[in-house]
Amino acid sequence: VTDEGLIAHTIAEIAEPSKAAEIRAWERLDSLTKPPGSLGLLEEVAARVATLQDAVRPSVPRKAIVLMAADHGVTDENVSPYPREVTAQMVANFVAGGAAINQLARHVGATLTLIDIGVGTPVPASDGVIEARIADGTANMARGPAMTREQAARAVRIGIEAARALADDGVDLIGTGEMGIGNTTSAAAVTSVLAGVEPKRVVGPGTGLDEAGVRHKAFIVKRAIERNSPDASDALDVLAKVGGFEIAGLAGVVIGAAAAGVPVVADGYISGAATLAALRMAPGVAPWVFASHRSAEPGHGIVLEALGLVPVLDLDMRLGEGTGAALAMGIIDAACVMMSGMATFAEAGVTDREQTG
Amino acid sequence: VTDEGLIAHTIAEIAEPSKAAEIRAWERLDSLTKPPGSLGLLEEVAARVATLQDAVRPSVPRKAIVLMAADHGVTDENVSPYPREVTAQMVANFVAGGAAINQLARHVGATLTLIDIGVGTPVPASDGVIEARIADGTANMARGPAMTREQAARAVRIGIEAARALADDGVDLIGTGEMGIGNTTSAAAVTSVLAGVEPKRVVGPGTGLDEAGVRHKAFIVKRAIERNSPDASDALDVLAKVGGFEIAGLAGVVIGAAAAGVPVVADGYISGAATLAALRMAPGVAPWVFASHRSAEPGHGIVLEALGLVPVLDLDMRLGEGTGAALAMGIIDAACVMMSGMATFAEAGVTDREQTG
Repeated sequence: VTDEGLIAHTIAEIAEPSKAAEIRAWERLDSLTKPPGSLGLLEEVAARVATLQDAVRPSVPRKAIVLMAADHGVTDENVSPYPREVTAQMVANFVAGGAAINQLARHVGATLTLIDIGVGTPVPASDGVIEARIADGTANMARGPAMTREQAARAVRIGIEAARALADDGVDLIGTGEMGIGNTTSAAAVTSVLAGVEPKRVVGPGTGLDEAGVRHKAFIVKRAIERNSPDASDALDVLAKVGGFEIAGLAGVVIGAAAAGVPVVADGYISGAATLAALRMAPGVAPWVFASHRSAEPGHGIVLEALGLVPVLDLDMRLGEGTGAALAMGIIDAACVMMSGMATFAEAGVTDREQTG
Repeated sequence: VTDEGLIAHTIAEIAEPSKAAEIRAWERLDSLTKPPGSLGLLEEVAARVATLQDAVRPSVPRKAIVLMAADHGVTDENVSPYPREVTAQMVANFVAGGAAINQLARHVGATLTLIDIGVGTPVPASDGVIEARIADGTANMARGPAMTREQAARAVRIGIEAARALADDGVDLIGTGEMGIGNTTSAAAVTSVLAGVEPKRVVGPGTGLDEAGVRHKAFIVKRAIERNSPDASDALDVLAKVGGFEIAGLAGVVIGAAAAGVPVVADGYISGAATLAALRMAPGVAPWVFASHRSAEPGHGIVLEALGLVPVLDLDMRLGEGTGAALAMGIIDAACVMMSGMATFAEAGVTDREQTG
């Protein structure tokens, strides 16, 4: 089976959540010892996991974050204040346990699956990194397509298979994360095309550009789109022409998780662009995806709107790596623990307001 | 020593955080392997705990929530859809472990200290409840003062001593929580007087009033303030005339925690009103307080503004009990874990942007 064939087959497997399970979830939530709806978004989150798991006592004890790393040829255009070597250096930092995501994943009890899907400079060989390198970084999209359609499909397949392997291991909740110097530029290009908005509306400072840097970056995104003319109705074409290996890979993680019946938590802007591509390829992923947080990167608001998702957190974060996903997984876990552990009005002998007029 | 004397003595003990510690905290955060500031509010939180602990590796392993329960005479005016018996019933539910706060406190590793500071109907005797009942609920503030000044001072002292006992046990972070049918009405009255805003701006649906119910509640708050003429410049007078035993008690918890050098996390609207009273009695508490979340109860925004605090979470919650405090304590813990566990650019061998121009 070709990579595109496997993608199509996987998309066809995505199930629609049960309406009956959703009704049972809300009946249960409304019977618990609290005024109905008084836990707000926490109840919405619990109800959604309960629906997806078809269980009134949802739980997500086994959590995993898939962190994909890749480089971007567009860094030749000076779109980041950091050199591309930092991608490989940060992969080594992830392996050593020194990055933000290591601490936050551990804090919420999530494992970290680290995948080199196309880092451009050598990553030290390590048991901690899955080697799935498609190329030494993408080509410079300001001069031609970032990758071929075949490479994009292969990246999506790698993501699908990573999600499937975690689901087979019994993981209940998958988070996305990424590392790739220059990847807010690729995410901006993907978002601009798929959401149909001007590049300047989705370009931000990334890791720390000044105003002139942001203007230059918007110009590069605009040029990349003009040069490559991606077909907005074909998300795989968009990923190939102006995306990144980790962005296409994470689109695959979202599709693979949904197909395996595992809810997935999208991190910030780059993961959001990947999720938007996944949604366009497979509209059925929508109920399976949680938005973790609202990134400080301005384009993320447009991504969230296009996804139709309300994020769990808003902490003004813009790091990536899956740091927002990890924190949100802690809240989703708490929501499940709340719903599964609370007593009902009847069980606790508490007078409900319906009984008293 | 009188209760007011003990309060004054405690307020005098509150220390000012070290400016040098704050500078060291930010230098450390900026040396860690992430673009400066890219973890947003998580960095602000970590820096604040680091400053308060005077440590570049802050940590809050031992967490406790103080949940105070009391009844309100103003429930005679039909300001809540639930009967006052629910306060005692919910205390029994807390003891049995069936409430939302039991699940969320356990989830974040916080203990629960449950104090009956004035429940109006019998609470079953239990090792799980600290008996510190000042009266069988407050008097109806719509007809006269809710309590005497002596009772208010005693409630504040109970809170101070509860916080002090936890600090002596080595607790690193204290959260506030409350239960008391009718207490959004008292919180609204306290907020209206201390923030100097019209009652109708701080009255909301509470546990679920309809529009007519909210209008009636605002009328009752207005009447209580007119009848009792609390002195806005004397927070203890405001607590006595239109407050509640748990609100005065939690003001004491905030003061006691700050005096003991322990950061404190205020839950939602009722805890926020208590924190505002604490701040007016003891301006030095300000750096020691974290706002956990933005409550769906409309008056909470006014409380947060008066406190000058940005909440950690915004989950549209309005339950109380300390549920918002518990979730925020999880995020504060994560912030400390991040700051304490991350490698620096130098340690990880990652190229920082300053080095590359």
